[in-house]
Amino acid sequence: MERNKTIAELKNEELEKFFKLVELLKQEFEKQMKTQFDRSLPFPELLFDRWERARKLGFGDGASVYDSCCIFGRVKVGKNTWVGPYTILDGSGGLEIGSNCSISAGVQIYSHDSVEWAISGGSIPYEYASTRIGNNCYLGPNTIIAKGVEIGEGSVIGANSFVNKSFPAKSKLAGSPAKLIV
Amino acid sequence: MERNKTIAELKNEELEKFFKLVELLKQEFEKQMKTQFDRSLPFPELLFDRWERARKLGFGDGASVYDSCCIFGRVKVGKNTWVGPYTILDGSGGLEIGSNCSISAGVQIYSHDSVEWAISGGSIPYEYASTRIGNNCYLGPNTIIAKGVEIGEGSVIGANSFVNKSFPAKSKLAGSPAKLIV
Amino acid sequence: MERNKTIAELKNEELEKFFKLVELLKQEFEKQMKTQFDRSLPFPELLFDRWERARKLGFGDGASVYDSCCIFGRVKVGKNTWVGPYTILDGSGGLEIGSNCSISAGVQIYSHDSVEWAISGGSIPYEYASTRIGNNCYLGPNTIIAKGVEIGEGSVIGANSFVNKSFPAKSKLAGSPAKLIV
Repeated sequence: MERNKTIAELKNEELEKFFKLVELLKQEFEKQMKTQFDRSLPFPELLFDRWERARKLGFGDGASVYDSCCIFGRVKVGKNTWVGPYTILDGSGGLEIGSNCSISAGVQIYSHDSVEWAISGGSIPYEYASTRIGNNCYLGPNTIIAKGVEIGEGSVIGANSFVNKSFPAKSKLAGSPAKLIV
Repeated sequence: MERNKTIAELKNEELEKFFKLVELLKQEFEKQMKTQFDRSLPFPELLFDRWERARKLGFGDGASVYDSCCIFGRVKVGKNTWVGPYTILDGSGGLEIGSNCSISAGVQIYSHDSVEWAISGGSIPYEYASTRIGNNCYLGPNTIIAKGVEIGEGSVIGANSFVNKSFPAKSKLAGSPAKLIV
Repeated sequence: MERNKTIAELKNEELEKFFKLVELLKQEFEKQMKTQFDRSLPFPELLFDRWERARKLGFGDGASVYDSCCIFGRVKVGKNTWVGPYTILDGSGGLEIGSNCSISAGVQIYSHDSVEWAISGGSIPYEYASTRIGNNCYLGPNTIIAKGVEIGEGSVIGANSFVNKSFPAKSKLAGSPAKLIV
């Protein structure tokens, strides 16, 4: 069943004109994105620049972060690190990410959790612990990093992993909970 | 390679002015969000309030739900429950969620599935069964709950779990498919 | 703690009026979406039509794709295939998806990876290999498909799977890495 959305249904001339400008803006930026990057992206990503957002947040030179990344508290990120769409960088308990990292789409890195808050019916506060990802790390899609974890530089974490303890440099990890793989 | 987006390329004065207002709106709400919550959020989350959306949907007092949550059909949610970004609440077959729950980022709770639809080449319709999450439950990031599942109150479900059967109150679950852990 | 956002704080009449039109547009499309589909969707999904996006991208008749899907490079998609929210279709190394597939929310299908790029500190380029999903496949929520994988038609892949090798027609898969299940 296809959608039946029509501007005419808005029955408000000012609103119709407003929506036509929204559509025109999307078309123009879609064309630019197709030409420069050969991509078709969600509307908010068309509107705003990934590198500009990273600069405003004080990330290192050449870093970029999609509009759809949710950033809590203070997060320090090094140079050239790529932060993908639908990610969470939670610095509410402290978070530092090194340079040249791939933070793949859907990755969530935490420095707090709400487990005790939920099962106590809201009477126990959130818990916090600082988290750190070294330089040159690859975090595969949908990887979750729990609060308080430290990942040493040059580590590779497979897709869909849940990392709930720290690992030294050059670790290759996968699984939930994540373990070293050969 | 950095993006080459320029307002000047729009070559349309009205559209340029429109986009400048979009950018100004983002800046203003970014400042407010930084000051009040110390957060940097996706553009749609800056525009709309999480508590207001929950109220309009008839959720319990103090509940909140991110703009990026997709809600299908009728979903009943209790008091103070937190529904994070990039979540799916599918009530097409009936869905009830209790009070004081943490529905973490990326959680998807279903009351239908399209497995038989897909492998039959579209000739078998979707299947439905109602789903229920009790009070005071913690659902970890990226957890998937299949249609027809009931989770008893005070349960904790680890990150990246796939829950395809029901569990009683105070269960601690993890894995795909999810199993009881000590 | 509830959010304290007020239009009055914008202190700019033109911007206040602009934001009121944003809110009105949301309300109108919310009403239409509720009436026609009984859904409450993220703001960008209210603005743009899923079937229209699929048509513009050259997907097959009846296919649809959410605004929040990120599409890289050239991606070929067959008839009636449903592509859900928060998905990644990466055709940078070539991607073909058949007809009547369910590409569930959070699915990410790749034809490149940045593992060697990251651990080499950015000195080794991305790697590419083409990926193919046959007709009538069900890809469960949050499934990740690695570059170079071929999935035969009529296959079912369970939620939260990570598929890093090819499988023939009518495979039933689950796990990270995904394996055949009975």
